[in-house]
Amino acid sequence: MSSTPTIFISEVGDHANEKVRVKGWLYNRRSSGGIHFLQIRDGTGLIQGVLKADHVDDELFEYAADLKLESSLIVTGQVNEDERAPIGYEINVDNLEAYQAVEEDYPISRKEHGVGFLMDNRHLWIREKGAAPVLRIRHEFLQGLREFFDNSGLIATEGPILTGVSVEGTTTLFETDYFGESAYLTQSSQLYLEATAAALGQVYWIGPVFRAEKSKTRKHLTEFWMAEAELSWVEHDENLDFQEKMLNYTVNQVAEKRSGELEELGVDVDDLIRKVELPFPRITYEEAIDIVNDAGVSMEHGEDFGAPAETALGDHFNKPVFIEMFPREIKPFYMEPTEDGEKAFTADLIAPDGYGELIGGSQRIDDLEILQRRMEEAGLPEEPYQWYLDLRKYGSVPHSGFGLGVERTITWICGLDHVRETIPFPRQINRIYP
Amino acid sequence: MSSTPTIFISEVGDHANEKVRVKGWLYNRRSSGGIHFLQIRDGTGLIQGVLKADHVDDELFEYAADLKLESSLIVTGQVNEDERAPIGYEINVDNLEAYQAVEEDYPISRKEHGVGFLMDNRHLWIREKGAAPVLRIRHEFLQGLREFFDNSGLIATEGPILTGVSVEGTTTLFETDYFGESAYLTQSSQLYLEATAAALGQVYWIGPVFRAEKSKTRKHLTEFWMAEAELSWVEHDENLDFQEKMLNYTVNQVAEKRSGELEELGVDVDDLIRKVELPFPRITYEEAIDIVNDAGVSMEHGEDFGAPAETALGDHFNKPVFIEMFPREIKPFYMEPTEDGEKAFTADLIAPDGYGELIGGSQRIDDLEILQRRMEEAGLPEEPYQWYLDLRKYGSVPHSGFGLGVERTITWICGLDHVRETIPFPRQINRIYP
Repeated sequence: MSSTPTIFISEVGDHANEKVRVKGWLYNRRSSGGIHFLQIRDGTGLIQGVLKADHVDDELFEYAADLKLESSLIVTGQVNEDERAPIGYEINVDNLEAYQAVEEDYPISRKEHGVGFLMDNRHLWIREKGAAPVLRIRHEFLQGLREFFDNSGLIATEGPILTGVSVEGTTTLFETDYFGESAYLTQSSQLYLEATAAALGQVYWIGPVFRAEKSKTRKHLTEFWMAEAELSWVEHDENLDFQEKMLNYTVNQVAEKRSGELEELGVDVDDLIRKVELPFPRITYEEAIDIVNDAGVSMEHGEDFGAPAETALGDHFNKPVFIEMFPREIKPFYMEPTEDGEKAFTADLIAPDGYGELIGGSQRIDDLEILQRRMEEAGLPEEPYQWYLDLRKYGSVPHSGFGLGVERTITWICGLDHVRETIPFPRQINRIYP
Repeated sequence: MSSTPTIFISEVGDHANEKVRVKGWLYNRRSSGGIHFLQIRDGTGLIQGVLKADHVDDELFEYAADLKLESSLIVTGQVNEDERAPIGYEINVDNLEAYQAVEEDYPISRKEHGVGFLMDNRHLWIREKGAAPVLRIRHEFLQGLREFFDNSGLIATEGPILTGVSVEGTTTLFETDYFGESAYLTQSSQLYLEATAAALGQVYWIGPVFRAEKSKTRKHLTEFWMAEAELSWVEHDENLDFQEKMLNYTVNQVAEKRSGELEELGVDVDDLIRKVELPFPRITYEEAIDIVNDAGVSMEHGEDFGAPAETALGDHFNKPVFIEMFPREIKPFYMEPTEDGEKAFTADLIAPDGYGELIGGSQRIDDLEILQRRMEEAGLPEEPYQWYLDLRKYGSVPHSGFGLGVERTITWICGLDHVRETIPFPRQINRIYP
C-alpha cells in the first residue's frame, strides 16, 4: 500500500518536493532527447509531467511514447518547483498508467479548427485552453452575483419556466402542449419576482429564459441565463446604485479568484477592474442620442439604440454607462412613467467595447389604474394577468428591478467574440446538438 | 428632515430603545381598549406595532382603525423589548402612513381556506405564515448545497433545457417546435454534466427539469428543480460518502440559519439534526426487500419500491437510508453493472417519515462497448448520443453522480404534506396559473 496522496493540480503548491498522485488527462505532449514532456490537465489546472528515460524502466518510457492525447492518466511523481512553468511547478514522473488509452486520434488536436467543427464537438471543445477557463469564470461570476445578493439581504426565489402568459409579447415564444392547453417557455421571471418580492421583501433568481428569435448575431442565444432582482420599496435611483455596486463587486470577485483564467484569455485584468470603478456615468436618453450622433452614427429621437449606437456609447465612456429615462412608448408596459407620461423611470446599462446592453431595468408601475391603462394600450388581455394586477390591489409598494444577461456580461468580461462560448451547450437557431 | 433609520424587521435587535422606520405590510390586527395591535411584516420578519390612542392624535388613531389587511405601510416608532413577543421586541408606534390603503377585503383573510383557493391565489398565499417560511428555507437549503459543492471544489455548470435527446425515454417529455425540428424539455442534465466533468473535473448544477407525467400525487410536479453532480475519478462508495456529507451539511445549515422558520412550521429541529447524523445506513436491495416484507408490505425481487415500501423502509430506520445495488434491468442504461451483469452500482436515498426517494445516483458506465450494448438493449439509437459515446472514446474515467430532488427534500425538511408548497409557483397537471 502506498501512502502517496492523490491531489488536484490546483493544490501542487502545498506539496512542493513531495511525491503525489494526479488523476487527469493527457492534454498535450512533446518528446526531446530521452524526455517526454507531458501536459496533464485535471479540470483544476494544467501541469507538465517530465518523464525521463534514465529515470524509469524502458517499458514505461515506450508505453508513454505511444499515448494519444486525452488518454485518461494516473500519474505519480515528485512535485518540483520550476519558475518557467505557468503554474510554478512540474512533476518528475515516477510512474504513469492510462485508465483508458485513447485509440482513435483525438478530433480536436491542438491546432486551429473552424467554429462549426468546434461547435459540433462542443462536448470535447470545453476541455481546451480557450474554452475551459471561460466556464470557470462563469462559475465565479455567478457565485459572485449570488454572494452580492445574499450579502444585500435578498432571498433567492424562482419564477416558473412554463407559463400561460408572456412578459413581452408572444411572437418570440417557444410553445408546448401542456395537457391540452398552450404553455410558453418564459422570457423573464420579472412578473413572478414582483409577487415574491411582495411576500419576501427583496428577491432574485438566476435561471434560464428563452427567445425563439430567428436572429443570428454574436450577442444572441435562444436559451440563455438571466440574473433578475426585484426590490420592494426601492425607487429608480437606488435601483441604479444597487446595479452598479453589484457589477463592481462581481467583476472584482472574478478578477481576484480567476486572474489566472483571465490572463490565459488575454484579458487585461487591471483595465477590467478600472472599468468597473464606481460610479458609472448616468446620462439621459436625450444625451445619449446626441453622443451617438456626434460619433457619426445617425439616430433620431424615439428610436431604440442599435448595435452601432451602443458601440459609440461604449467608446465614448470606455466603461459601463447607464442610459436613463427612455421615452415611455419604446419600453415595455410595466415601467413607471414620469408625471407627464412622456418618459419612463428606466435604465439600460451599456458595456464598453461594443458589447452592448448588459442590464435592462426600471421602476415598476405600482398604481393599479395606470398599469391597467398601459396594458390596454399594449393590447394585453387582463384575465391572464389578474394575479399580477392583484399585486397593485393588495399592498402595492414602490418597487424596482432589473435583468442582467449572464452570457452577454461574461462575453464582455472575457473579451470574447461571441456569446456562444460562455455557456457549456449553446442553443442557437441552427444548433440543438450536442 | 428626520434622521430616523429605515430598518428591516430582522434587524430590530440592533435598535432596542431607538426610534426606527419600518416599511412593510399590515399582516393582522386587533384592537382593544384604546390600543391597536398591528402585526407588520416586511419579508424579513413579523413585528407587533402598538398604537395607543393616548400617544397619537385622534385623526391617526381613527385612520389606523380603518386600515385593511395587506395595506402597505411606513411605520415609525420606538423599538421596545418585549419578552412575550416571538421576535422579542415590539414597536411603540408614533406615526403610520399607508403607501397604498387596500380597498377591497384581502382575499386570504387569516382563516382556513381550501387548497384549490389557495393555489389559485398562490401569488398572495406566499405572504402567509405557513407559506413564506418555506420559501426562506428553500433559499437557505439551495445556498447550503452550493456552499457544500463549492467547498468541495466542484464547478457550477449548466446543462441545456432544450435538448434533442432524452435521458430516460420520450414518453414523459414536453415537446416544442425548434425552428422546424423537435426539441424536448430536459428531464435531467446528467449526460451533459458527464461531459463538463471530463472538462472541469467535478461539477454540479441546480436547475429546472420537466416531466409531462399525468400522475397526481403529493410527491410530483411537472416542473421541478434538481441538484445534480458528476464526479470524475469517483467510484460507488465514495459517491455515497459525498451524498451523505452533503445532506448532513445542508440540513445543519438550514437548522442553524432558519431555526425560527422551522419552528414556525412546527418542525422538531433537534430531531431533524439527529436524523442526518452520519453515517446513514446502507443496505442492499435484497436486504431492503426483506425489511419491506417483514413490515407487511408484499414485494417481490425484481420490483422497484413503491410508496408503501419506501414508507416501511423509512419507518424501519427513522433516518435517511441508502438502498444499494439494484438489479441492473430495473435501472437506466448508463449505470455501471457488476461483473456478472446482474446488479448495478447504484443507490437511492430514501427519506424517513414516508417522504420517499430524495436522491438517485450511481457509478456511470465508463467502458464504451458495455455502454453501447446497454443502449442497444434499451432500444436507444446511437446517433443522437454520439457525443455521449465520445466521452468513453476520449479519456474515459471511472465516475459517479447523482440527482437530488429539491422540492422532495424541502418537503421532508419542513414536514409538509405536499411538494407544491416548496416552490413559489408550482406546476401540476391541472395547474399553470398563476
